[in-house]
Amino acid sequence: MIETEARKEAGSRTERLDAVFAALADPTRRAIIERLSRGEARVTEVAEPFHMSLNAVSKHIHVLEASGVVARRRKGRDHILSINTRSLDEVDGWIERTRRYWEERLDAMERLLSELKKDPKSGPKDRKHDSR
Amino acid sequence: MIETEARKEAGSRTERLDAVFAALADPTRRAIIERLSRGEARVTEVAEPFHMSLNAVSKHIHVLEASGVVARRRKGRDHILSINTRSLDEVDGWIERTRRYWEERLDAMERLLSELKKDPKSGPKDRKHDSR
Repeated sequence: MIETEARKEAGSRTERLDAVFAALADPTRRAIIERLSRGEARVTEVAEPFHMSLNAVSKHIHVLEASGVVARRRKGRDHILSINTRSLDEVDGWIERTRRYWEERLDAMERLLSELKKDPKSGPKDRKHDSR
Repeated sequence: MIETEARKEAGSRTERLDAVFAALADPTRRAIIERLSRGEARVTEVAEPFHMSLNAVSKHIHVLEASGVVARRRKGRDHILSINTRSLDEVDGWIERTRRYWEERLDAMERLLSELKKDPKSGPKDRKHDSR
C-alpha cells in the first residue's frame, strides 16, 4: 500500500518536473518569472514590457500556472500573480542531486590523475584485475 | 561592436537555456542524464534499462546532444556518451539568481510580519503615503 502511494507520489513528482522544465524552456516565460521574483504583480503589469499582445502573454501565464510555478489570486477586479517558490525547489533539487554525482566523479578522476602523475608506472594496467 | 557581441552572446545563452530546459522536460532524458552522471557509457549501455527500442532511445540522446548536455565520442566501433557539466551549470545559475530574489523578498516579508507582531498599530495603514 505504502509502496503504491510512494510510486504515485514519485509519478506525480516526475510529471511536475516535466511540466516545470517545459515551462522554463521559453524566454518570455523565464522573463515573467524573473519579473514575479521581484514581487507579485497584476497580469497587465506583467504583460506591459513585452512586445506582444495581452492574449499572447496570457497564454504563457497559463502554461506557468499549469506547471505550478505561478499562482493567481483575485483582488477585486485584479488578477494578482505570484511565484510558487516550492515548484522550483524541486527542479533545483534534481539538478543538485545529479550534479553531486558528477562532482564525485570528477573528484575521483582528479585523484586518479594525480596518482598517475606521482607514479606513472601504476597506471590503468595495474588495475586490470581490479575492475568490476 | 562590443555591445553587439554581448547581445549575440546573450542571445545564444537564451537559446541554450531554452534547449537545455526543453531537453530536461522528459523523464527518459532525465534518466539518461542520471545514468551518465555516474560515468560515461556506450549508447547500448545507456539504452539497456529502458523498455523502448534502441531507435527511440537514440532520438532522446540526439535531443540531449543538440542541447549540449550530452557529448558523444567514438572509440573504435563504440559511441561513448558523457555529460557536459557546464551546460547544466548555466541552468542552475539561472534558477539560483531567480531564487535569490525570492529569498530576499521572503526575508523582507518576514521582517515586516515580525514588525507588525511587535506593534500591531504600525501596520500597512501607516505606510499609505510611503508606497511607490
